[in-house]
Amino acid sequence: MVGGGQGAFIGAVHRIAARIDDQYELVAGALSSDPQRARESGAALHLSPERCYSDYRAMAQAEAARADGIEAVAIVTPNHLHAPVATAFMEAGIHVICDKPLGISLAEGQALAALAQRKNLLFALTHTYSGYPLLRHARAMVEAGEIGELRLVQVEYSQDWLADAIAAGGMNEGNWHNDPHKAGPGGTLLDVGLHAYHLVQFVSGLTPHAVLAELSTFVPHRTLDDHVQVMLRYANGAKGTLWASQVATGCENTVRLRLFGSKAQLDFDQEQPNALWCTPQGGNRQLLRPGRVDSAAARHATRVPAGHPEGYLEAFAQLYLDAALAIRALQAGLPVPEEARWLPTVFDGVAGLAFAEAVLRSHAAGAQWTTLAS
Amino acid sequence: MVGGGQGAFIGAVHRIAARIDDQYELVAGALSSDPQRARESGAALHLSPERCYSDYRAMAQAEAARADGIEAVAIVTPNHLHAPVATAFMEAGIHVICDKPLGISLAEGQALAALAQRKNLLFALTHTYSGYPLLRHARAMVEAGEIGELRLVQVEYSQDWLADAIAAGGMNEGNWHNDPHKAGPGGTLLDVGLHAYHLVQFVSGLTPHAVLAELSTFVPHRTLDDHVQVMLRYANGAKGTLWASQVATGCENTVRLRLFGSKAQLDFDQEQPNALWCTPQGGNRQLLRPGRVDSAAARHATRVPAGHPEGYLEAFAQLYLDAALAIRALQAGLPVPEEARWLPTVFDGVAGLAFAEAVLRSHAAGAQWTTLAS
Amino acid sequence: MVGGGQGAFIGAVHRIAARIDDQYELVAGALSSDPQRARESGAALHLSPERCYSDYRAMAQAEAARADGIEAVAIVTPNHLHAPVATAFMEAGIHVICDKPLGISLAEGQALAALAQRKNLLFALTHTYSGYPLLRHARAMVEAGEIGELRLVQVEYSQDWLADAIAAGGMNEGNWHNDPHKAGPGGTLLDVGLHAYHLVQFVSGLTPHAVLAELSTFVPHRTLDDHVQVMLRYANGAKGTLWASQVATGCENTVRLRLFGSKAQLDFDQEQPNALWCTPQGGNRQLLRPGRVDSAAARHATRVPAGHPEGYLEAFAQLYLDAALAIRALQAGLPVPEEARWLPTVFDGVAGLAFAEAVLRSHAAGAQWTTLAS
Amino acid sequence: MVGGGQGAFIGAVHRIAARIDDQYELVAGALSSDPQRARESGAALHLSPERCYSDYRAMAQAEAARADGIEAVAIVTPNHLHAPVATAFMEAGIHVICDKPLGISLAEGQALAALAQRKNLLFALTHTYSGYPLLRHARAMVEAGEIGELRLVQVEYSQDWLADAIAAGGMNEGNWHNDPHKAGPGGTLLDVGLHAYHLVQFVSGLTPHAVLAELSTFVPHRTLDDHVQVMLRYANGAKGTLWASQVATGCENTVRLRLFGSKAQLDFDQEQPNALWCTPQGGNRQLLRPGRVDSAAARHATRVPAGHPEGYLEAFAQLYLDAALAIRALQAGLPVPEEARWLPTVFDGVAGLAFAEAVLRSHAAGAQWTTLAS
Repeated sequence: MVGGGQGAFIGAVHRIAARIDDQYELVAGALSSDPQRARESGAALHLSPERCYSDYRAMAQAEAARADGIEAVAIVTPNHLHAPVATAFMEAGIHVICDKPLGISLAEGQALAALAQRKNLLFALTHTYSGYPLLRHARAMVEAGEIGELRLVQVEYSQDWLADAIAAGGMNEGNWHNDPHKAGPGGTLLDVGLHAYHLVQFVSGLTPHAVLAELSTFVPHRTLDDHVQVMLRYANGAKGTLWASQVATGCENTVRLRLFGSKAQLDFDQEQPNALWCTPQGGNRQLLRPGRVDSAAARHATRVPAGHPEGYLEAFAQLYLDAALAIRALQAGLPVPEEARWLPTVFDGVAGLAFAEAVLRSHAAGAQWTTLAS
Repeated sequence: MVGGGQGAFIGAVHRIAARIDDQYELVAGALSSDPQRARESGAALHLSPERCYSDYRAMAQAEAARADGIEAVAIVTPNHLHAPVATAFMEAGIHVICDKPLGISLAEGQALAALAQRKNLLFALTHTYSGYPLLRHARAMVEAGEIGELRLVQVEYSQDWLADAIAAGGMNEGNWHNDPHKAGPGGTLLDVGLHAYHLVQFVSGLTPHAVLAELSTFVPHRTLDDHVQVMLRYANGAKGTLWASQVATGCENTVRLRLFGSKAQLDFDQEQPNALWCTPQGGNRQLLRPGRVDSAAARHATRVPAGHPEGYLEAFAQLYLDAALAIRALQAGLPVPEEARWLPTVFDGVAGLAFAEAVLRSHAAGAQWTTLAS
Repeated sequence: MVGGGQGAFIGAVHRIAARIDDQYELVAGALSSDPQRARESGAALHLSPERCYSDYRAMAQAEAARADGIEAVAIVTPNHLHAPVATAFMEAGIHVICDKPLGISLAEGQALAALAQRKNLLFALTHTYSGYPLLRHARAMVEAGEIGELRLVQVEYSQDWLADAIAAGGMNEGNWHNDPHKAGPGGTLLDVGLHAYHLVQFVSGLTPHAVLAELSTFVPHRTLDDHVQVMLRYANGAKGTLWASQVATGCENTVRLRLFGSKAQLDFDQEQPNALWCTPQGGNRQLLRPGRVDSAAARHATRVPAGHPEGYLEAFAQLYLDAALAIRALQAGLPVPEEARWLPTVFDGVAGLAFAEAVLRSHAAGAQWTTLAS
Repeated sequence: MVGGGQGAFIGAVHRIAARIDDQYELVAGALSSDPQRARESGAALHLSPERCYSDYRAMAQAEAARADGIEAVAIVTPNHLHAPVATAFMEAGIHVICDKPLGISLAEGQALAALAQRKNLLFALTHTYSGYPLLRHARAMVEAGEIGELRLVQVEYSQDWLADAIAAGGMNEGNWHNDPHKAGPGGTLLDVGLHAYHLVQFVSGLTPHAVLAELSTFVPHRTLDDHVQVMLRYANGAKGTLWASQVATGCENTVRLRLFGSKAQLDFDQEQPNALWCTPQGGNRQLLRPGRVDSAAARHATRVPAGHPEGYLEAFAQLYLDAALAIRALQAGLPVPEEARWLPTVFDGVAGLAFAEAVLRSHAAGAQWTTLAS
């Protein structure tokens, strides 16, 4: 693991996720660039002292050189380090599991994708929500034609944790989210907007060809955007709206996706992840539930019987499980197995960065329709 | 009543609404322009034959001339007749209760407003949803500063009843909705988009200064728009999204309004009209209910104790009740009483048409930010 | 109307309900036994002074003697007067629409039923909830065998309006609810427990053969029960639980019915009357809605399109509409029309009183299984 | 671990739960009494062959003799083995984490409690639902007097997985649930009824002094009860209803607890474990959420920020975490730390068996009020 020292939220989440399905053992880390903090964080996690690194490049080289070196690295650093860290480990032949966003520019992302392909390594990107069984089922329904042709997309990602004045603690996870050098050129856009965008692609299977976007910053002294509004156009004529906000007063972590097809509507909110609403045109709503839907996709991502709710950590674990399946296949020279094919990878990351880049261009042009780079 | 002959949905709704609080008696009508249908429709409603008109101008003059002539007329015709019918009755000194939209052009609306003012007549506009007690309460909360300064608006009005192919019955309420001469220059925009827009204004008390809009037509052979997406900008920096759709597969009649202020969020959906969600920044959601909130505004619009759900017809009745209160006050030379001040009127109608006009201009310009006419 | 003078809640509800579908005109009343209050209440409702009575017997005789006398009387008095008032009007040949409970003893109810039959008069009993379109649909589903054989019943009626100490206003609708001479031998049992019981019978079509019951009184100085718990046994082996409470802290007016059949479960709560949940054994829940279910029963009780919520007043109006249909048929010597056959009548009232009587016996015996009188 | 060989559901759940918070390592097991299955199951879990036992007594002795022997055993066998297995490990000085029910008779449970006390060992009982952060918060609210004095209890545990005919697969988790020698004298009563009972005690802090109960068996060829109805009486006058069913058509795994106090109502359903409804008497409902409530109890049981749903596996993990805290304290000769004090233990198991014993006596007496053994 790179990043994720003591006190870091997302590092702890990755470690729980890696444990749940018992496919990983944490044996080495560059948990902090500060040597003492790296050592102490490693000790708290029972790492051998010699495998507690304070430099990720050193770690990549040392682990690659060990007979029992790591097979995969989890990258949970601030955004600007995702690309250099991932590059170092891929150059050393080590598989990568990276937090989102893939990087802070489209070019960076494209380079990572090329490298992963060249080295034939797995590059998993933890777009967590795609691990929920009902979103897997939703995708299976779309692929089976059950919603018909897509017409409308409505997606939102809304939180309120940045709604307070900065002095009042509104940036309580450290300042790097407000620093363009570390966070990249987008605030809310890269932090949660890309999750929303990925979900639409994940479930619909479609990529918009153009966006029209406006970024806003509501809280004084904030450098980056804290609110994003986007219109979407698809080649088949479908239209959509995406909004992401971290100043959505009173919202915890709403990630709601609605797809309206010619035959049916799908409706999902990750705050109620054991509920997928499916409504046929003109008909009654159905509340689909993990243990009650019949798809291999949902079964693969479900651990317990109907009525035993699974949540965010299990969705996260699903990505780790799928990554393990994929890595084993690659190690054996086999194709990635069918059930792991929905794991988000570096290519999803590139798609997200292409979207972000178009959003930034549209906004800079005063909210003009802007074509995505292909 | 003008319009509302046999088989017309909205005429029957107006009549129920007028009866609920026992302030009106239906005594005359131009229920159809077809003399026989006018006569038969009137007979079914127990009207005297001599007060069953087939020409609204004749009705206005005849009723104005009677000692027991009507005090107010309800207009439930297709859109293009709202203005001429209202004009005829106002010229005859008769108060008007008119279905929305106010008319089919901003100029038409402005002329009606001027006439109503000149004749000192009530011109009520039936933006039904503003009759719900919890939306009245929401407005009272906003006025009392309980949500703080408005930051974000999210409003949608989504139906699926025009989602099917036209031949399959998707225009089953008659064809005038698809005829620009009768419906006006907007389809979904004027039919339900204006309801959504009115709600935002009604509760927030704010008018956006600019819009960016895109209209879409999904169903082949449809002349007018069946889907509308709009971004909103307010003078205080608030931003918003409004979308209205009649091709939103699986939606019955969702009218959901969310306002995010610096202090709290309000969330309301007219399909659950006895629930107003209020969430303070960073806090827990509260589910406010008609018999449990403490405001004069909600009490005025509530007929039964807590837990006895009221619905759409009572919201509609509320507008009729408020109109009766206002008409009596005008007849007595008194100001409109406090509790009836939230009745939508011709001025709300003008505001709606100004919005529609700006949306049409923005769309025609390829989705450019467009300032509302003042 | 007998009872329902100024300030009385349920009288006003009956009047709204009678108006909604335009089948009734209120022309006479014994609105109070106090002559002055009777006169003033009548004047407020635009009754002719000579038809404002202060004695219900006088009213029955006078109205029966008029050529334009009333066709039906609505009885909205305290419980102990239901039977004598109804008797007086039926003796005078006038149809009856009576609030629940039918009376305060089983014998009283049986006598009313016999009289109604002998005089061939309609005796409607306003078990309001049976007017909801989705409960009508639920009954149609049960009759069509869609839930299979009934196994379990769970029904509750819970309110909190009597939960506070009496001095604190917990009996704010007047004291007669706490007076056994006026309320009868049961408090919550007769006030709301019978509603719950009726619902089970109404939807399931089944009558339990035995009950085991315990009554409780939680609030000091209360004479009658404020909480009821009952177990139910059916001839087919089905089991059930019914509880009714007016000290259920925080409850507004929950009336929730769940039926579990061998094939499917039905779940309804009158606080969300536009939602009927239907879940097949082992399957996914479906949310049925008034404008989207396909049954003549639901259509007959629905006034507006899907997504336009109807509520308590419309359910009440449905009983008045059905009563009008039934009265017209009886007046014409025709059978009650199919669509009005689900109107609760004096026979439902007798069934309810048989239940109440068994509950009281079971409780008096220390919660023994007790057979219902047949 | 004893029990939990390949294909056993609950064993896998225990293992995930033990991993989530990284406090346990699985090193030995008597996963099956069949030697080959024990070996294969152990190998699949990466156990050393010499620590794969097929006899739990041998395991207890061998592990107790090892310097690196297990500190605690997880017991996930059929019910009848809980007591003998736990006895063997406690006699060997090993802490116990046991699935519910504690045993199949009250005497058995009392003996286990005495042994645990004598040996000063932790005996944790996995009443999973008490691990949910909002139920911990609910208990803290009750302890702080926030709901006032308890008046009413309504609790249900409803599933449908035994509703089908036995031949149709209704006993698909093996036959031991239907065998009184292995399951004990109660079917649904011991399987899920005890969960419901524990929850009431856990949150309310109160034990009823008497019960009145009826057991039912709906499905032919079933030996034990599949449906339980119980009335509860408390010393302070509070009343309650508990029902548990595994033939509740359409229910997945509802575990709903409502407590009505003199001040407020609490309402929780484990299928929505991130929602605790709290309603003050006469007031509006509040929806409490894990990351938004302010109690040490909830924080201790929460791993992720507000809006990131946790579920059943995390609740289970919470018990394992608390057990680890308790074991460490006992090993150090310290008192069990404050934050682990809500872990269900052998004493909760005894209380549950006392309840079950009284329920069985009441049922055998034809549903008589029956005092709990003290």
